[in-house]
Parts: sequence; C-alpha cells; structure tokens
Amino acid sequence: MQAEISTGKFIVIEGLEGAGKSSAMALVKAFITELVGQEPVCTREPGGTPLAEKIRTLVKTADATDPLCDEAECLLMYAARAQLVANVIKPALAGGDWVLGDRHNLSSLAYQGGGRGLMPLVQTISAATLGSFRPDLTLYLDIPPAIGMARAANRGELDRIEQQALSFFERARATYLSLAAADDSIVVIDANQPLPKVHEDILSALNQHLRV
Amino acid sequence: MQAEISTGKFIVIEGLEGAGKSSAMALVKAFITELVGQEPVCTREPGGTPLAEKIRTLVKTADATDPLCDEAECLLMYAARAQLVANVIKPALAGGDWVLGDRHNLSSLAYQGGGRGLMPLVQTISAATLGSFRPDLTLYLDIPPAIGMARAANRGELDRIEQQALSFFERARATYLSLAAADDSIVVIDANQPLPKVHEDILSALNQHLRV
Repeated sequence: MQAEISTGKFIVIEGLEGAGKSSAMALVKAFITELVGQEPVCTREPGGTPLAEKIRTLVKTADATDPLCDEAECLLMYAARAQLVANVIKPALAGGDWVLGDRHNLSSLAYQGGGRGLMPLVQTISAATLGSFRPDLTLYLDIPPAIGMARAANRGELDRIEQQALSFFERARATYLSLAAADDSIVVIDANQPLPKVHEDILSALNQHLRV
Repeated sequence: MQAEISTGKFIVIEGLEGAGKSSAMALVKAFITELVGQEPVCTREPGGTPLAEKIRTLVKTADATDPLCDEAECLLMYAARAQLVANVIKPALAGGDWVLGDRHNLSSLAYQGGGRGLMPLVQTISAATLGSFRPDLTLYLDIPPAIGMARAANRGELDRIEQQALSFFERARATYLSLAAADDSIVVIDANQPLPKVHEDILSALNQHLRV
C-alpha cells in the first residue's frame, strides 16, 4: 500500500569515505521506488551533469605543479553544485520526480568548512548560491574515520581528497555530527554496525520520516 | 633613469572584447620592463595556471546539453582566480616581481555582476575569496560594444561568452564605467581612438601613476 505522495522529495546520503554510501544508495533507491511507484533521479556530488563531472575530475586529481588551493576547491564544489541543482535537481523536483543524492551541501560544510577550516567562506557561498534550497531528508552514515579510511583504502587507489590526513576526516566528522544535532532533517545512522543492522536503521528512519 | 621601486606592483588591463587589450599588454609590459629593469610576470584570466586554464576551457565552451548556469559561471571564474592569486600572483609579488594581468576581478564585477545581473553574488564571493587583495592600478580600455564586437568577430570564431547579446556587453560597459568613476586606481582609457593616441594615453596614465 502506497502513501499518497503528491510531489517529489530530495533525499541525500552523506558520510565519510568508507561509510557505506553506495549500498545505502541502492537500499534507499529501492525504498523510494516502492513508495512512489517510480525510480528516483539519482545524482552524485561533485558531479551529476557533463560539466559538473569535469569539475569532479579537477577536484579529485592532484597536480603537484599547481596544487589546488582550499578556496578554489570550495568554489569548484559549489560551481558543480549550482550546475547540478539548476539543470537536474530542481527540474526533476518541479516535474514531480524524487531525487536521491550521493552527497550534497552538507559535504561542503563538513569537508571544506570543518576539514579545511573554511566555514565562514562555505556558509557565505552556500547562502549566496543555494538560498533556502535544501534536502527534505539527509541520512548521515557515521563511522570513525580510521575504520572508514581502511575500508576505502581496500577498494583501491585513493584520490586527492581521500589522501588527506586522518585529522582532516576527524574534523569533518565532528562537523557532520554537530550540524546533525541541530537539524531535525539530518538523521545520524551508526554505520559502524553489521550491515544488516545499518540497513534496518536506514529503513526505520525512512519509514519514520517519509511514510504518511 | 629608473625610479626607485622597492616592491612589485600588480597592474591590470581590462576591457570588453575588441578593446585592444593584447596590444596594450605588450605596451605596458615594455613600460614596466624599462621601469624596473625586469619583465613582469604576465597572467590572463580566467586562466594562468594549469588548473585555471582547464577552468577557462569549461567557461568558454558552450554545451547545449548542459548549459552553464550563471551562478556556476561566476563560481568557476572565482575558482580560477583564487588559484591564480594563490599560486602565481601573490608569490610573484612577495618575491618582489611585478605582475601584469590581462583581466582580473573587475571583469567578474562587469560581466557576471553587471552583464548577468548577479552583482550581490559577485560582491559576496569577491569579498569572501579575495578579501582586501586588489591591483595597484587598472587600465580600463573603454569602447562601445558594437565597435569592439565587430573587431572581435573579425578575429575569428566567437566563444561562448563573446556570443552574448550586445545588451549584455552594454551592461558590462556601464558597470566598468560606474566602478571606475568611484575608484582612483582604475583609469579609463578611450580605446575608440587611433591606436597611437590610445597608446599615448596609456603611457601618460602609467607615468602619472607609477613614476615616483
């Protein structure tokens, strides 16, 4: 039996590297598809449009001769996000579709704001470019950075951002948790549990927040 | 006889397409070289570092399937600028070199702020990323857009930004003139004169502002 959902919602999965975002994306995609009878539009950030994917390559690739400065990294993240919101997310929501995002603005607050120590810049640019636009629900998969990075390293070669020091991810995690504590639309999922229990907690959060 | 110049200065050439920036760059480069006995570091924006040149390609190239939204254009311009300032301009000035720029922040104020109508966003990002950093002297080559665009079109195929409507460049020109009127470090050069007279005016401005 489906709830009556008249307009699309924007749901986002967040978390550090190795937190289990990919399997959570698949689970939530299936949940939304069952809920509304149609697959959501799935996005990833940075990226999700042809131009935003090119920006993704710029921020993920290290160049020793021209190291990406923190401010440029932040501006590139928001350029990709502005493009994705304008050309994919807002048109989809306006058309009644649901959107499921692998990362969104909370990643910039955590990584560039908390990790890089650029919170005032991030908040300024976020407000100036996104205004009041935000996800209806964010699931933050919480994991100790040392455990997440070990998982990520097992997957293969680490990109420029994944190669940051553990202290960078500790600051990002603290920011995630702090922002989640102050925002009812961000649900913290303990991702340092056996996968079936993590998925049970995700489904429980979805049922609580999305079922009418 | 050379004036005693102990530290480098940042000089910028600004103007619409077809205003004559390239020949002005050569003239000012020669002037600075004579003045301080060493060639200035020459930059162009957007661009001037390996990564910023890749960003230049993104903003100059039209993609009908994923049109660059105005906010993303603005953020990409500032990402390229942050990278250039951090990795080229500030290190050069700190080392005592002079820097000569083909465009800088005033272009974003004129094109994205005036042309696109995004002045509050541009001013916010400008302040958040550049702080108080600014050129010591800017020469704005002023030309009616219709004349400048005819010259630019004669040079060959127009890029994405050069293909904007004439009204876009009229707004950009009005912004250039308005900002110049309020800032003693921006000198307006009438570029709609015979080239020898334009160059005389440029040298006059340089002698007035840079000679001790």
